Amino acid sequence: MLPKTQRRIVLASRPTGEPTENNFRLEEVPLQEPQHGEVLVRLLYLSADPYMRGRMRDGASYAAPIGIGEVFGGGSVGEVVASRHPVFKVGDIVEDRMGWQEYAISASPAMRRIDPAIAPISTANGILGMPGMTAYFGLFDVGQPKAGETVVVSAASGAVGQAVGQLGKMAGCRVVGIAGGAKKCEFVVKELGFDACVDYKAAGDLNAVLRAACPKGIDVYFENVGGPISDAVTLQLNTWARIALCGAISQYNAEKPEMAPRLPGLFVGKRVTMRGFIVSDFAQKYEPARALMGEMVRSGKLKFREDIVDGLEKAPKAFIGLLRGDNFGKLQIKVGDEPVGLPHRR
Amino acid sequence: MLPKTQRRIVLASRPTGEPTENNFRLEEVPLQEPQHGEVLVRLLYLSADPYMRGRMRDGASYAAPIGIGEVFGGGSVGEVVASRHPVFKVGDIVEDRMGWQEYAISASPAMRRIDPAIAPISTANGILGMPGMTAYFGLFDVGQPKAGETVVVSAASGAVGQAVGQLGKMAGCRVVGIAGGAKKCEFVVKELGFDACVDYKAAGDLNAVLRAACPKGIDVYFENVGGPISDAVTLQLNTWARIALCGAISQYNAEKPEMAPRLPGLFVGKRVTMRGFIVSDFAQKYEPARALMGEMVRSGKLKFREDIVDGLEKAPKAFIGLLRGDNFGKLQIKVGDEPVGLPHRR
Repeated sequence: MLPKTQRRIVLASRPTGEPTENNFRLEEVPLQEPQHGEVLVRLLYLSADPYMRGRMRDGASYAAPIGIGEVFGGGSVGEVVASRHPVFKVGDIVEDRMGWQEYAISASPAMRRIDPAIAPISTANGILGMPGMTAYFGLFDVGQPKAGETVVVSAASGAVGQAVGQLGKMAGCRVVGIAGGAKKCEFVVKELGFDACVDYKAAGDLNAVLRAACPKGIDVYFENVGGPISDAVTLQLNTWARIALCGAISQYNAEKPEMAPRLPGLFVGKRVTMRGFIVSDFAQKYEPARALMGEMVRSGKLKFREDIVDGLEKAPKAFIGLLRGDNFGKLQIKVGDEPVGLPHRR
Repeated sequence: MLPKTQRRIVLASRPTGEPTENNFRLEEVPLQEPQHGEVLVRLLYLSADPYMRGRMRDGASYAAPIGIGEVFGGGSVGEVVASRHPVFKVGDIVEDRMGWQEYAISASPAMRRIDPAIAPISTANGILGMPGMTAYFGLFDVGQPKAGETVVVSAASGAVGQAVGQLGKMAGCRVVGIAGGAKKCEFVVKELGFDACVDYKAAGDLNAVLRAACPKGIDVYFENVGGPISDAVTLQLNTWARIALCGAISQYNAEKPEMAPRLPGLFVGKRVTMRGFIVSDFAQKYEPARALMGEMVRSGKLKFREDIVDGLEKAPKAFIGLLRGDNFGKLQIKVGDEPVGLPHRR
């Protein structure tokens, strides 16, 4: 039996600087029924990703701003519980941009069915979803690593970073992570097989520590954080280095651009290519990449770590923590129990 | 009759900040005779280029540092006056990296013969030399403009900028220059056919003036100057914009990196590609490009402006002025009279 009402989290106000829980509001609203061509989805895992900070702003971001009073969030995974859709049927596990709520109506052409046999279904928000695709195309299409080169990735234990490093190892590269804290560093080296990881919080002289970790310099930098970490990496770049510019989480809460030393001279002398990208630029190439990564996840060759927070009401706090680096692995908000019988149910 | 001695300018000391004339020394030394495989060249036009500031430093630059007491300078054009070389003969006009002196011995495999029928021979230091190749490959190979796009080039009336703008017009682009002073701006618009030029010295609000000059935004930025001009351009970049990073003359005299606002978020959202390059990366493609540009210069389709200073002893002051933007067109130091009978003699 479906409930009469559902809960959801809407954007209550736009933050100045770091968001607070007051920028969000938990609402209870009547459950809708699917109309012709629509499905009703009971949501299970909600994604919380750094890019969503951009959607809290009113101004220009590559992701459209969320209006005040509108449902917050982005990607989510759930179970179809009612369908008037020609393709999706009750019981299907699906992923779509359905936001932070307990139920969603969708007729989106972007909705896709998840095969629960491959991996836990939450991976459709992570290693086999947007973050995994970001890692795959950002590393291979933008970073273009060659065997024997050194790849550095910041936010190394995060949703994207953990995949970047493992894919870099598969490509025959030396992979060095940058992460905050000994636990995250130990994880990416011992569990994921990175060659080294720099704990930027413990490194006194970041330049020196990074140099020691990258004795042959840096050929590819997968940039997730920006700020002084980015400067330190730039100083160690090799000639012909590539920077895949994915994000700059250290800057997302800034109201004004941070001041930093100009380093463009290095970019000329070393012929550095820096390229910003957004994962959706590669949407037409998702399917083969997802099939490949799905097989690697299924076989255990590609590992992943998720940080699952239980309860819709905890989403805002978890998201605020994500922007501080408090999460450890791909942050997900669990809002419903998985249906019984799923192969990787948890 | 050849003289017994010649004059030359050597690096006397390394500058701190802006170079002074005391960093250079004019010397008189005995004239050498060419040995087997060598030529003796009477120099006529010496090139003075911004990149030479990097050669005054002891540390890392893409151009090797000039040692204290060594001849300063780079490219130069002259007449072979004695030869024991299998290819070059007396009377040939040649270009090579022969430095700031009146005579030079060379056996360099990079020496090339100039055809004086195409254009004034000084152009071998300019539009048909290193700066021209820089413009050609930086614009076409790095910037990759498409017809209808907007190309912006800084230092627009300089050796490289003037060629970039004209080539951009030939490629069917809207071309907007950035230059210092009304005369330079008027020149690139009225003489060279740029669509507009922003006088950064007169523009109160550079962002607003640039926006007005580029109503459809900026697709390609050919970067010669760096600094706040670069920031203003960055704010107007379109999605998929390319930055061809050639130089950053505004930073060359800085002892420490200038502090500036970080703008990497723009690079992600707009998928900007920024690529540093050095002209010699394209050396294997010079010949066809030079043939093409030579024909355009010969026919008058590709114009050029040179700023010729007379007398070796004036080279240091002229070079110091170049770094301040005092020159108007490609800076050359004339140190000898052209042989009589050259088609474009002056």
